[in-house]
Amino acid sequence: MKANAGNFFEDFFVGMQIVHATPKTVTEGDVALYTGLTGSRYALFSADRFAQDCGLESAPIDPLLAFHVIFGKTVTDISLNAVANLGYADGMFVAPVYPGDTLRSVSEVIGIKENSNGKTGVVYVRTSGVNQNDELVLTYVRWVMVKKRDLDAPAPEAVIPELPANVDAENLVAPMMDAEDWDYELAGSPHAYEDYTIGEKIDHYDAFTVEEAEHQIATRLYQNTAKVHFNQHEQAQGRFGKRLVYGGVAISMARSIAFNGLANAAQILAINAGAHANPLFAGDTVYAWSEVIDKADISQGFGALRLRLVATKNLPCTDFPYKDEDGKYLENVILDFDYWTAIPKRG
Amino acid sequence: MKANAGNFFEDFFVGMQIVHATPKTVTEGDVALYTGLTGSRYALFSADRFAQDCGLESAPIDPLLAFHVIFGKTVTDISLNAVANLGYADGMFVAPVYPGDTLRSVSEVIGIKENSNGKTGVVYVRTSGVNQNDELVLTYVRWVMVKKRDLDAPAPEAVIPELPANVDAENLVAPMMDAEDWDYELAGSPHAYEDYTIGEKIDHYDAFTVEEAEHQIATRLYQNTAKVHFNQHEQAQGRFGKRLVYGGVAISMARSIAFNGLANAAQILAINAGAHANPLFAGDTVYAWSEVIDKADISQGFGALRLRLVATKNLPCTDFPYKDEDGKYLENVILDFDYWTAIPKRG
Amino acid sequence: MKANAGNFFEDFFVGMQIVHATPKTVTEGDVALYTGLTGSRYALFSADRFAQDCGLESAPIDPLLAFHVIFGKTVTDISLNAVANLGYADGMFVAPVYPGDTLRSVSEVIGIKENSNGKTGVVYVRTSGVNQNDELVLTYVRWVMVKKRDLDAPAPEAVIPELPANVDAENLVAPMMDAEDWDYELAGSPHAYEDYTIGEKIDHYDAFTVEEAEHQIATRLYQNTAKVHFNQHEQAQGRFGKRLVYGGVAISMARSIAFNGLANAAQILAINAGAHANPLFAGDTVYAWSEVIDKADISQGFGALRLRLVATKNLPCTDFPYKDEDGKYLENVILDFDYWTAIPKRG
Repeated sequence: MKANAGNFFEDFFVGMQIVHATPKTVTEGDVALYTGLTGSRYALFSADRFAQDCGLESAPIDPLLAFHVIFGKTVTDISLNAVANLGYADGMFVAPVYPGDTLRSVSEVIGIKENSNGKTGVVYVRTSGVNQNDELVLTYVRWVMVKKRDLDAPAPEAVIPELPANVDAENLVAPMMDAEDWDYELAGSPHAYEDYTIGEKIDHYDAFTVEEAEHQIATRLYQNTAKVHFNQHEQAQGRFGKRLVYGGVAISMARSIAFNGLANAAQILAINAGAHANPLFAGDTVYAWSEVIDKADISQGFGALRLRLVATKNLPCTDFPYKDEDGKYLENVILDFDYWTAIPKRG
Repeated sequence: MKANAGNFFEDFFVGMQIVHATPKTVTEGDVALYTGLTGSRYALFSADRFAQDCGLESAPIDPLLAFHVIFGKTVTDISLNAVANLGYADGMFVAPVYPGDTLRSVSEVIGIKENSNGKTGVVYVRTSGVNQNDELVLTYVRWVMVKKRDLDAPAPEAVIPELPANVDAENLVAPMMDAEDWDYELAGSPHAYEDYTIGEKIDHYDAFTVEEAEHQIATRLYQNTAKVHFNQHEQAQGRFGKRLVYGGVAISMARSIAFNGLANAAQILAINAGAHANPLFAGDTVYAWSEVIDKADISQGFGALRLRLVATKNLPCTDFPYKDEDGKYLENVILDFDYWTAIPKRG
Repeated sequence: MKANAGNFFEDFFVGMQIVHATPKTVTEGDVALYTGLTGSRYALFSADRFAQDCGLESAPIDPLLAFHVIFGKTVTDISLNAVANLGYADGMFVAPVYPGDTLRSVSEVIGIKENSNGKTGVVYVRTSGVNQNDELVLTYVRWVMVKKRDLDAPAPEAVIPELPANVDAENLVAPMMDAEDWDYELAGSPHAYEDYTIGEKIDHYDAFTVEEAEHQIATRLYQNTAKVHFNQHEQAQGRFGKRLVYGGVAISMARSIAFNGLANAAQILAINAGAHANPLFAGDTVYAWSEVIDKADISQGFGALRLRLVATKNLPCTDFPYKDEDGKYLENVILDFDYWTAIPKRG
């Protein structure tokens, strides 16, 4: 068989190393498409001049674009036969990515556990994205539930990795930028690190309705090959009767919406956790709100905000919709994303 | 409140200066998307080699792309709570924009007048777009009808700016290009300045059906945040029950269609006036026709054509549809755009 | 008439030379859009670093993107009044195209034959795409059935060009690349030239559902102006009641899908023949399979595979659907594309 139908649960083993296909040079073209598809307005990623005023050579790409490109490569090998994307942990953005950089991804299987039904199992992988100089750009862990090809295949010894509940503030890689000349007017908000308080919630007000063409173009740009996003002919017979929007599209739309209230918190430093609480479909309208979970002073110019970014579908976020009394996500909640971001200190 | 819900009528005052957020480096990526979304075929903006044969360093970006980028930044501050975009005047394209240039926008409120209903008012702003060297790229006036937040707020003293009916030909900034080696075959038309006569009308023949994904991607690329273009969940309860297409999308589609008959009139010099006569929705098909309103000799190599560009929805332009007997726009007319363009002289 | 309604059958004559309008500088922006619209994952066109390891200066653009750009320019002059695109032959990719290159197209009419109905005729053209240095990039023949404007116009003397059934392997221009350091892992498949056998069939497994916005953006990016792809208002009254997807979109989607099984066969060397067997519409899901028709050793590092690429709509390719007993294409088959591709030899 020359065509690849993806790995099944029994193909994985702890310690397995996977070099993922199709390195990609990220370009100004990708940045333009990312802006057109997400509406992102963070000045640091939008304007060379703004970035240069922070001491950078030019505008780096949005860390989430790097994340999607690095993640996309892993799908063919890791999650083509996944039933569910269960979670993310310990994600660290280590080095900025500039247009012209070439990204590739490698993964290591760090845990594995067959489910009691004998039909599926959970696979934990640590994925690393590296650039053309073999420098680490991003590393994260995700775990997925994968189907078995052969139900009679024996269950492997269960290995469940120890994962931090969140990235410790001490481990964050502070932005290598000057904050002295940060232009709050051009960035779109007067609010600095000092202005945010733990527990504070922000309704981001804006919203985007997702179209099939939009999420498909985005997901293909990331060279993510998961069939559920692209094949209506097959999905018409599936559980939902329609194509699912890639969870990363929801993350990026929510982060774009979060600009309105977090305009200076452009730089993402770490991904602590993430749950795609309910499926998102074309035609749905995405709203978002944020909560400040924690704060940390990380460098002379920057502080870090730990944020919970919650996105909903077809439900404004005035009342910060989240979970019900039993701790279960409300049905309109599509995303619960826990991350660290850098924001300049007023000093 | 950290999220911005936009300014209301009583927030504006004459002389108010606004620095708009999110500067943007315009790139070859934006140009590609602009081509993909509008189908523009003007050789000057499409091919470096063609532009170099005119003495330029490379292909500048389409002036309308610059306009949309500069306009887009103003929406959050000026028109987020606008009921209607009433008009444009005195728009001048002063310097070319090249991929790599970073654009930002500043506005000054130059007029203000509360409506007699006490619920809304008209705000006049002059917006200037400048590049990374603080050089003026584009300046224009627009006026919008904006809601009051507090109906009891007192009416300000009315100030209505004097605006020219059109940009005087003497004030046009002629293209800094050679026309001697203009290649009419590659440009797509044998027709030079001398071939157009005042009063001449041109049916541009081509047409485009607009899709939701297309106008949303374009409008997000311009970082324009007006909710009416993006939020179907909210618009379903609104006046039209659906999302409105950003008027600038209509202008760009019509200008792309106008290539067929005006292929050598690539460079836009000035915007005299513009009216979005009726709303445009996804699913509508845009047609366009032009009328030569005036002509002016502006440099050794170039003349200027003052053109009326009329776009319709779902109505071919064979008969040049425009206004009814009472001077009211026909219901299929969506755009009435009055502008100056440069076109080489045969000499 | 300043607007161009295209040439009709009686406007063509053998020996006629046409310089097509609107040269285009192909950029990283076009590459990003091409990736977003097709999902292409061939490493050679995706990553500068991969291309540099093959001795190239950077990643060239996908030959099909060059083909669509060069083809698109010809539509206004050749096929605006075409009833059908009948075939391709003798297509040769002669030189690689890099971002920054400016492409233009010229055509010569090499054959002409009026149909017996007196209403239409067949026009054969050889189109050449050249870059900013006037170097030939691509040449191919296509023939189209074009309407007569004046049914009383006399029939021209019939001239039917001699065309090769396929490009001879000896005439293929081998890639000017090193294959020694070809990284099969990064390219996404362990299969080299030696692993493919004549007669072998590959079901490519993946599939894409096409949206109106997607094919319109792609076709406009190629500056292809055929009205059938863009004007729903007119097409609603037409034969199908809807817009037709440009055949080149189908070719590119199928080639993207063919990555899964032909990941190392990135470089297209020649187009032998092509038929758009049935129309493709938005909402259809494209699947694809390939057959190895021939093999040829063409250089120290590379072999050539002659492949038949068949695309279907709404029909998985597990059983390699193609033609019925009478040799007629099955109604779900949309594309039959015969081409040569280069693939590294294991050596």
